[in-house]
Amino acid sequence: MPVSPEPPGPARDPVQPADAQARALAQGLLHAARHAALAVTDPETGTPGISRIAFGLDPQGLPLTLISRLAAHHAALSAHPVAAVMVGDPGDKGDPLTHPRLMIRVQAELLLRDHADHAALRAHWLVSHPKAQLYVDFPDFSFVRLRPLSALLNGGFGRAHRLAPDDLA
Amino acid sequence: MPVSPEPPGPARDPVQPADAQARALAQGLLHAARHAALAVTDPETGTPGISRIAFGLDPQGLPLTLISRLAAHHAALSAHPVAAVMVGDPGDKGDPLTHPRLMIRVQAELLLRDHADHAALRAHWLVSHPKAQLYVDFPDFSFVRLRPLSALLNGGFGRAHRLAPDDLA
Repeated sequence: MPVSPEPPGPARDPVQPADAQARALAQGLLHAARHAALAVTDPETGTPGISRIAFGLDPQGLPLTLISRLAAHHAALSAHPVAAVMVGDPGDKGDPLTHPRLMIRVQAELLLRDHADHAALRAHWLVSHPKAQLYVDFPDFSFVRLRPLSALLNGGFGRAHRLAPDDLA
Repeated sequence: MPVSPEPPGPARDPVQPADAQARALAQGLLHAARHAALAVTDPETGTPGISRIAFGLDPQGLPLTLISRLAAHHAALSAHPVAAVMVGDPGDKGDPLTHPRLMIRVQAELLLRDHADHAALRAHWLVSHPKAQLYVDFPDFSFVRLRPLSALLNGGFGRAHRLAPDDLA
């Protein structure tokens, strides 16, 4: 029987437009994230696939990942570049659904190792992901820019905001 | 330049069949999970959507979630019941990509509140998710069974296993 004074659910609590607090929370989640969940379209079945990816930002602040072209999600992004990522880990305490997370619809841009940006991205990435030194120079690893198309910030029950790419920058 | 004695990447490290250790690790991740990342097909665009969901097991050990039918992912699962979930949170220490996670391709079964199983699922769920007491009886919340179709266990670089539904039981 309901006891919460703040009933959850989108109908009672519609998605809000962006505001300064939502932008700051979203940008904080983006800057703190070192991994993300990635949703792709499986090219064999056309149904969703999911995986964990390394996550960071490029020098312009755009989401970036470093993956092996031998990984299933690399093939999926090649075939279907529109994907979705989620950042914002729940802590060990409290209800994980009240912990803020940011879901971003993205357009993946696969950057080959001979791309003009590769060296600069490599240097920038290793500052925030020093352990990637172990594999960043393997020939199958390359960067994928995840250019935001739109985003939804869920700050917990009752705090959902629709964000535009500019709100994340 | 490569310095790791154990180069990562599927080609060097193909996905293994299930074994007793992989089954035990997968089942441990399933039993411990209280939330998951869910990948769906957005019915408006046909592209992937992602969200965080509450996660548990039903009395038969099948993955289960409790969601509002007003949520975007509920509409997505209604339109495209094949989805994917990932469980297994990285800890605060070490490379998050070395932390084990389980990705499961699932067939969602939306159980209306007047479904014969609802009362039993509700009682079972509240044991593992006591905070759901706050909203489990709101009229828009209902259970969704996520019946496994196949799974991939990634135990970190060099430890990937393909699992069948029976391996998770």
